[in-house]
Amino acid sequence: MNFPLVSKLLGVVMLILAIAFAVCLATAFWLDSPQQLELTIRAFVASVGISLFAAALFFWVGRSHTKKFFRKEALCTIGLAWLLASLIGAVPYVMVLPDADMADAIFESSSGLTTTGASVFGDLERFPPSLMFWRCLSQWVGGMGVVVFFVAVLGFIGVGAKMLYANEASGTVSEFEESRIQSTVAKLVWVYVGLSAACCLAYWGADMPWFDAICHTFTTVSTAGFSTRSTSFAAFDSPTIEWISIIFMTLAGLNFILILRICMGRFRFVLRNTEFAAYITILVIACVLVSAFLRFDGTGWSTEHAIRAGTFQVVSIMTTTGFATEDFTQWTSLPQMMLLFLMLVGGCTGSTAGGIKISRLVIAVRQSILTIERSFRTRVVRQIRVNGQTLSSQSISDVNSYLVLIASVICGSILLVSVFETSHAIDTNLSIVFACLFNVGPGIAEVGPTENFGFLHYHTKLFLSLLMVMGRLELYAILALFAPPLWKRFS
Amino acid sequence: MNFPLVSKLLGVVMLILAIAFAVCLATAFWLDSPQQLELTIRAFVASVGISLFAAALFFWVGRSHTKKFFRKEALCTIGLAWLLASLIGAVPYVMVLPDADMADAIFESSSGLTTTGASVFGDLERFPPSLMFWRCLSQWVGGMGVVVFFVAVLGFIGVGAKMLYANEASGTVSEFEESRIQSTVAKLVWVYVGLSAACCLAYWGADMPWFDAICHTFTTVSTAGFSTRSTSFAAFDSPTIEWISIIFMTLAGLNFILILRICMGRFRFVLRNTEFAAYITILVIACVLVSAFLRFDGTGWSTEHAIRAGTFQVVSIMTTTGFATEDFTQWTSLPQMMLLFLMLVGGCTGSTAGGIKISRLVIAVRQSILTIERSFRTRVVRQIRVNGQTLSSQSISDVNSYLVLIASVICGSILLVSVFETSHAIDTNLSIVFACLFNVGPGIAEVGPTENFGFLHYHTKLFLSLLMVMGRLELYAILALFAPPLWKRFS
Ligand SMILES: [K+]
Ligand SMILES: [K+]
Repeated sequence: MNFPLVSKLLGVVMLILAIAFAVCLATAFWLDSPQQLELTIRAFVASVGISLFAAALFFWVGRSHTKKFFRKEALCTIGLAWLLASLIGAVPYVMVLPDADMADAIFESSSGLTTTGASVFGDLERFPPSLMFWRCLSQWVGGMGVVVFFVAVLGFIGVGAKMLYANEASGTVSEFEESRIQSTVAKLVWVYVGLSAACCLAYWGADMPWFDAICHTFTTVSTAGFSTRSTSFAAFDSPTIEWISIIFMTLAGLNFILILRICMGRFRFVLRNTEFAAYITILVIACVLVSAFLRFDGTGWSTEHAIRAGTFQVVSIMTTTGFATEDFTQWTSLPQMMLLFLMLVGGCTGSTAGGIKISRLVIAVRQSILTIERSFRTRVVRQIRVNGQTLSSQSISDVNSYLVLIASVICGSILLVSVFETSHAIDTNLSIVFACLFNVGPGIAEVGPTENFGFLHYHTKLFLSLLMVMGRLELYAILALFAPPLWKRFS
Repeated sequence: MNFPLVSKLLGVVMLILAIAFAVCLATAFWLDSPQQLELTIRAFVASVGISLFAAALFFWVGRSHTKKFFRKEALCTIGLAWLLASLIGAVPYVMVLPDADMADAIFESSSGLTTTGASVFGDLERFPPSLMFWRCLSQWVGGMGVVVFFVAVLGFIGVGAKMLYANEASGTVSEFEESRIQSTVAKLVWVYVGLSAACCLAYWGADMPWFDAICHTFTTVSTAGFSTRSTSFAAFDSPTIEWISIIFMTLAGLNFILILRICMGRFRFVLRNTEFAAYITILVIACVLVSAFLRFDGTGWSTEHAIRAGTFQVVSIMTTTGFATEDFTQWTSLPQMMLLFLMLVGGCTGSTAGGIKISRLVIAVRQSILTIERSFRTRVVRQIRVNGQTLSSQSISDVNSYLVLIASVICGSILLVSVFETSHAIDTNLSIVFACLFNVGPGIAEVGPTENFGFLHYHTKLFLSLLMVMGRLELYAILALFAPPLWKRFS
C-alpha cells in the first residue's frame, strides 16, 4: 500500500470540502437572520478550520510519495475519503442544531454526501438558510464525486483512474483509455454543470423561489433527494415544477457518458445502447402501470393527476432520487411493491443513481435465461451481448459475484437492524435497508416519504451511515477496508 | 426429446400413485365412520381408477422406446411427474370435502407431494381418517421421491440417473458412479424406511396415539410438516414428544448419504464434511440465540420451556419441516427475522429439506470473501474447497447462477402474488413466497403457524402450487418446461 499517495489524495478531498464549507459561510452572511448568524458563522468557520487542518495533515504525511498507484490504493482512497468527509460534514449539523446528537449529524451528513437523501430531521423549516444550503450542496458535491471526482482527482497521476472508474461505475471502462481520461473528465464536469444550470433555470422559470431552485437543482441532478421543505415537492403544488423535475431526474439517471454523446449529436450510438433501451423501457412500463393503478383504484383522481403522480413517484424512486408529491405508503400493496422493486433496480451505470443498476440486471436476466437452457443442454455455447459487445465469462462472473454479495449484505443488514429496531414490523426494517443501501432516501412503511429516520436507535443510525457509504461505493471500497491483506505495506 | 421413454416413466409414477391411493382405500374401510365411508370410498376408488387409467395411457404411448436418456428427458420427466401427481392427488380432497374448490385441492395436494406442508384447511378435525392418512402419506411418498425416487425409477435404464441426481440434490454427484447407483438407491430407501420406523416407534412409545404417530412419522422424516391436529405439535403438550420430533427433524435435514455413512460407522468421513459442520453450527447458534431471547424477553417462561420452544421452532423452520409448538408471529421482530432467514438457509443437499441449502450458502459465502479480496488483488489465485475437494470454477459459477435465478424468482413471485393479494402487508406476501418456494409450510405475519392459506385468492393458490413444485425441484425442472428448445424432437 502506497500510504503517502493515499494520504495526499485524501488531502485534496479535504481541500474541496473546505471550499464547500467556505461557500456556505458566505451564504450565512448573506441569508441567515441576525439571531442565527452567530451560531452558523461559528459552525462553518469551525468546519472550514477542521477540514483545512485535516488537509494540511494529509498533505504533510503524503509529502514524498511514489507514483505507484494500483487498485488497492484506489479503493482505499475512495473508501476513506467518503467516510472521512461524512464525519467532517457532520460538524455544521451538530453545532447549529441544539437537539442533534452525533449519530443524527453523521447520518444526515452521510446521507448528503452519498446522495441518499434520507433525513433524521422532520422540521426543516427551522434550519437556517446556510445549513440548508450545506445540506443540499453536499449532495451536489457527492454527485459530482460519483460521476467524475475520482477520475478528476486522479487524472494528474495518469494511471489507475481506469481501474478506479471501473470499480465506481461498472461497465463503461472501454470509454476510458488512459490518454483520453483527462479530456473526458473535463467534458463530464461540463455536462454535470450544464445540466445543473439548465435545471436551475427551469425551476426558477416555473416560479420556484430562487433559493429553493438552487437547492433543488443540487439535489435533482445528483438524484439525491433532499428538499428544502418538509413535504418535499408537494409543497410547491405546481404541475409545471413537477414535470421539470421528472425530466431532470430521468436525465440524471442516465449514464453521463450517454448524455455527453447526445450533446455531441451521436444519437445512433445512444440508441444502440442496451442499458439506455432497458432503462427507458422499464421506466415507461412502470409509469403506465402505476398511473393506471392510481387512476382506477378508488383514488378518485383525474387522469392528468394520476399520470403526473404516478410518473413522478416512479421516476423519483427508480432514479433513486427520493422526492415525493404523494405519500405512497397509503397506496395498496401492489404499487408499493413495484416501487420497492424499482429501488432495487436503480438507474444506469455511470449515473449518480443508486440501486443494483440496469446493466447488471440486464446481464443477470440474460444469464438466467441461458442458465435455464444450459440445465438441459449442458454443452450449449452461447454468448451474452450487451451494447453490441460480447461479454467475457469473467465479466458475467463479476456481475454474479456482485449480486450474491449484495444479497448477503442485504440479509446481514436486515438482521443487524432488527437487533436494535425490535419494535418495528419486518417491512419497515427491510425498507430501511433498501432506502439506505440503494441510496434512495425514503422507503415504505414507517420510513415513507412523509416520515423521517429520526425515531431510529443511535446505533442503527451509525450503522445506516456506513451502509449508505457502502452502497454508494458499490460495496467493495468499504468491504475491502475490513480485509487485512489491504493494509499490508508491500504486496 | 425421447417422448416414449418420458411417457413410460410417467406411467411408473402413476402406478406408484395408484398404490398409495389403494392403501388409503384400505384405511377408509378400516377407520372411517359409517357416515363418511360412502364418500371416502367413492373418492379413493375414483383416484385409483384415474391414476391406473393414466398409467395405462402412458405405458401405451411409451410402449416402444429407445434407450436414449439425457438431461433433458430427465428434467422433463421430473417436472411433469410432480405436476401431474399434484393434479391427480387433488382428487380425494375435492371429492370428500364439500367446500373445497379446485384451487384448494390442488394447493393441498401440491403442498403434500412437495413436502411443503402449507394448508388451506383450518379445521382438520372434520377430515375423515382416510383423507388425513392420504394427506400425510403424500408427504412421505414425496419425501421418498426427493431422496431416491428418481434414481430408483431410472435405475433400470442405467444411464442418466447421475445427471438427474446432480440436478435434484446438488453437490453429491461423485457418490453416484453408474455401477453403484442401484445399490446406493436400495440403501437410501432402507435408510428412509428405517428412520421412519424408528421415528414411529419413538412417537408411539411417548404415548402418541398410534394413528397420529404414523401420520406424524410420515411428515417428520420427509421434513414436510402436515399435522393431524389444527394446533400442530402444541396439541400433544408433551415435552418428550417434542424432543423426539426435534431429533428426527434434525436427522431428516441431513444429507441421506451422510446418514448412510453414519450407519456404516464411517464417522471420520462425516466429521470431515463441510456441509455437516456448517449445518450443525448454524443450528446450534440459532437455537441458543432464539432460546436466550425467549428466556429473557418478557415471556416469563422457565429456562427449560424457553430452550425447548426455541429449539423446536428453530429446528422445525431450518429443516423446513414447519411443525410448531408456539405462535412465533407473536414474537418481536429479531427472532422472527431469524426464523425467516433460516427458511432461506434450509437443510443439507441430498435431504428432503427445502431452502437454498447449506452447501450452496457455504460456497457463496466463501466466494464472496474471495471476491472482496479480488477487488484489490485482481490476480490473486485462490481455490475454494468444500468437503476436502477443490471446486471447479464451473461449479462456483453454477451456484452463483442458481442464486441469481432464485433471487429473480423470489422477486417475480412477490410481485405476482401482490397482483391478487392487494390487501395484505408486504411482509405477508414475502413470507407467503418464502413458505412455498422453500417448501417450509408456515410463514410469518398472516400465514403464521396458527393460520392457514385458505384466505388467499383462487389464482394465488394455483400459482403457489406451481411455486412449491418449482422450489421442490430446485427451479430448473419446471423452468425448463417453459423453454421452447426442450420440446424439439431432435436436438
Ligand atoms: K437519493
Ligand atoms: K415443510
